Amino acid sequence: MKALRVHLKDGGYSVFIEAKGLQKLADHIIRHHLGEHAAVISDETVSGLYGHRVIEALGRKGICCELHVVPDGETSKSLDQISKLYTKLIESKLGRDDFIIALGGGVIGDLAGFIAATYLRGIKWIQVPTTLLAQVDSSVGGKVGINHALGKNLIGSFYQPSFVVIDPSVLVTLEERELWAGMGEVVKYGLIRDGDLFSSLEINLDTLVTLADMDAIIEIIFICCSIKSEIVERDEKEIGLRRILNFGHTLGHALETETNYAYFRHGEAIVHGMHWASWISLNMGYLSESVFRRIETLLERMPVPNLPKGLKAERLASHIASDKKQSTAGLNLIILEDIGSTTVVKIESITELIETWPAFKGK
Amino acid sequence: MKALRVHLKDGGYSVFIEAKGLQKLADHIIRHHLGEHAAVISDETVSGLYGHRVIEALGRKGICCELHVVPDGETSKSLDQISKLYTKLIESKLGRDDFIIALGGGVIGDLAGFIAATYLRGIKWIQVPTTLLAQVDSSVGGKVGINHALGKNLIGSFYQPSFVVIDPSVLVTLEERELWAGMGEVVKYGLIRDGDLFSSLEINLDTLVTLADMDAIIEIIFICCSIKSEIVERDEKEIGLRRILNFGHTLGHALETETNYAYFRHGEAIVHGMHWASWISLNMGYLSESVFRRIETLLERMPVPNLPKGLKAERLASHIASDKKQSTAGLNLIILEDIGSTTVVKIESITELIETWPAFKGK
Repeated sequence: MKALRVHLKDGGYSVFIEAKGLQKLADHIIRHHLGEHAAVISDETVSGLYGHRVIEALGRKGICCELHVVPDGETSKSLDQISKLYTKLIESKLGRDDFIIALGGGVIGDLAGFIAATYLRGIKWIQVPTTLLAQVDSSVGGKVGINHALGKNLIGSFYQPSFVVIDPSVLVTLEERELWAGMGEVVKYGLIRDGDLFSSLEINLDTLVTLADMDAIIEIIFICCSIKSEIVERDEKEIGLRRILNFGHTLGHALETETNYAYFRHGEAIVHGMHWASWISLNMGYLSESVFRRIETLLERMPVPNLPKGLKAERLASHIASDKKQSTAGLNLIILEDIGSTTVVKIESITELIETWPAFKGK
Repeated sequence: MKALRVHLKDGGYSVFIEAKGLQKLADHIIRHHLGEHAAVISDETVSGLYGHRVIEALGRKGICCELHVVPDGETSKSLDQISKLYTKLIESKLGRDDFIIALGGGVIGDLAGFIAATYLRGIKWIQVPTTLLAQVDSSVGGKVGINHALGKNLIGSFYQPSFVVIDPSVLVTLEERELWAGMGEVVKYGLIRDGDLFSSLEINLDTLVTLADMDAIIEIIFICCSIKSEIVERDEKEIGLRRILNFGHTLGHALETETNYAYFRHGEAIVHGMHWASWISLNMGYLSESVFRRIETLLERMPVPNLPKGLKAERLASHIASDKKQSTAGLNLIILEDIGSTTVVKIESITELIETWPAFKGK
């Protein structure tokens, strides 16, 4: 087992990374004195695979759980859905001394965490991420929330879990496409913070995705969580440093919005977004041609959907402008000075920078 | 002007108490560097009286505000209402660096504070309470939230404002009934923490309510906010000490629930609740007969609606049992050992303790 600690002003929490970690969940709960009554929030796919197994295993250790299942996908991050969940929690008499278990990918973590943050003015919760993307990225940092008809993640808060249990053995039931999407965020960690991680991905990317070497997967998850943890410790509420985690997300979010979240997985859109941000880094003279080529080569090895035909640079630019992460005057973009090293530039001609991007021009 | 500071782990905030404080709002905002764009959330009555005046005064100092008005009363603390407000805030392009002004009584503070806590993962907000109850109680402490069909304040969080401006001159537009309801919470502060406050109320209660002596009102508000502040500083998240603020609220909430929040004002129900809790304190031998009579005499001077006919002790007991503040095993009740001194007892026979309460027996 690998473990790391996220140190925060209010005390922080541990992240346990372990094959067969799902089976140890009860032990962690007991050791953390979380109580004997929990609500497990999960989606249809994950609850079908692991939900009842988790509930039975916890039951055998005296932890009584109700399972609350929401439909798969981003649409469950809605006010409608949380309204239904609040009702179920109240009806099951979940109290202030009880807790919530988020069992699923990023959507479930965001949704269940927001419920935990706002039910009875906040109760304890634990994260059990089941996708690679959630394991390497969204399960650390306490960002929770839901969507609004006018934009993604516009409603939410920062609310840290009591601990996180990452079991990479559950990844074997994940579609290969989801694994590659998760790898998008792994590459991001290399690019923004860790040249060694990037170099090892240049060698191992394809074999990693086969999941043949579980120890290597555990190591990768540990590295990504450690990087994220170090950044979150220094800037929990995203006032400064934490913004580097948005590398590749500016255009990535715009691509997701423009294609109604139906064409790209999040990590796939980020692969395109990282290419764009790297190209701007080259274009503005921050990044050398040779390093850009290394980055481009790795990104092109990832089998993500191409940019769809008919994209309009102006529409993407307008999505970027209305993204909540932007301040009103100009766009602050995270770019690269080298692999593992970022800086921030203010750009104004977003449309032009999309139009002249070689990957976009051919569309 | 009187001012006090609420010291919290994350830094804390100031409470300014001043006649004509509404006119100084812009100065406070500028001195706190809160920004130049705000959303004012208010209800129909308060916005009619003060909304446009506030917006114009802020506009003259370069602070641009939109006014968002919700219907008067508790029903605005709903998921439906916050959904509408989120939409309005997004449409008005309220950003992360902007802020919210809660202009109104307890309902507005709870609602606007919850919006601030959850919009864009939390933005800054200030409280401008306009009822006596909100000025002496709910505007300090950061409890924010909304109701659920199955119970009051079941959805919410702890989210402290940047500062609080209390202008007692707005109380002159308040109905006398609301002033008396607010006095219910003032009496509570005397009973749980401050014998001198209680003694001064025994002398001045009726003249205070006339608002003839604004300095005396400011002093009373200052004392109540100071007591609350001291308690919140020691137990922000209501793990222990803060529970004493619920003195009188156990039966009070049950009375409100049983009468559908239509018969009693909150502070009025608390007057009955404090009488019950004081009587139990006497009944269980914690409080002397003579002190109980002093308390009873003061409470009976307050012109609050009588307990309605036909109340059933069993129904009140079942509301108490389902109140979120209760743990599953028995009821922890705040009772008095003396004026200004509380303790906690565990009681099991709630129904019996309501049935045998002399004030209830005649019903």
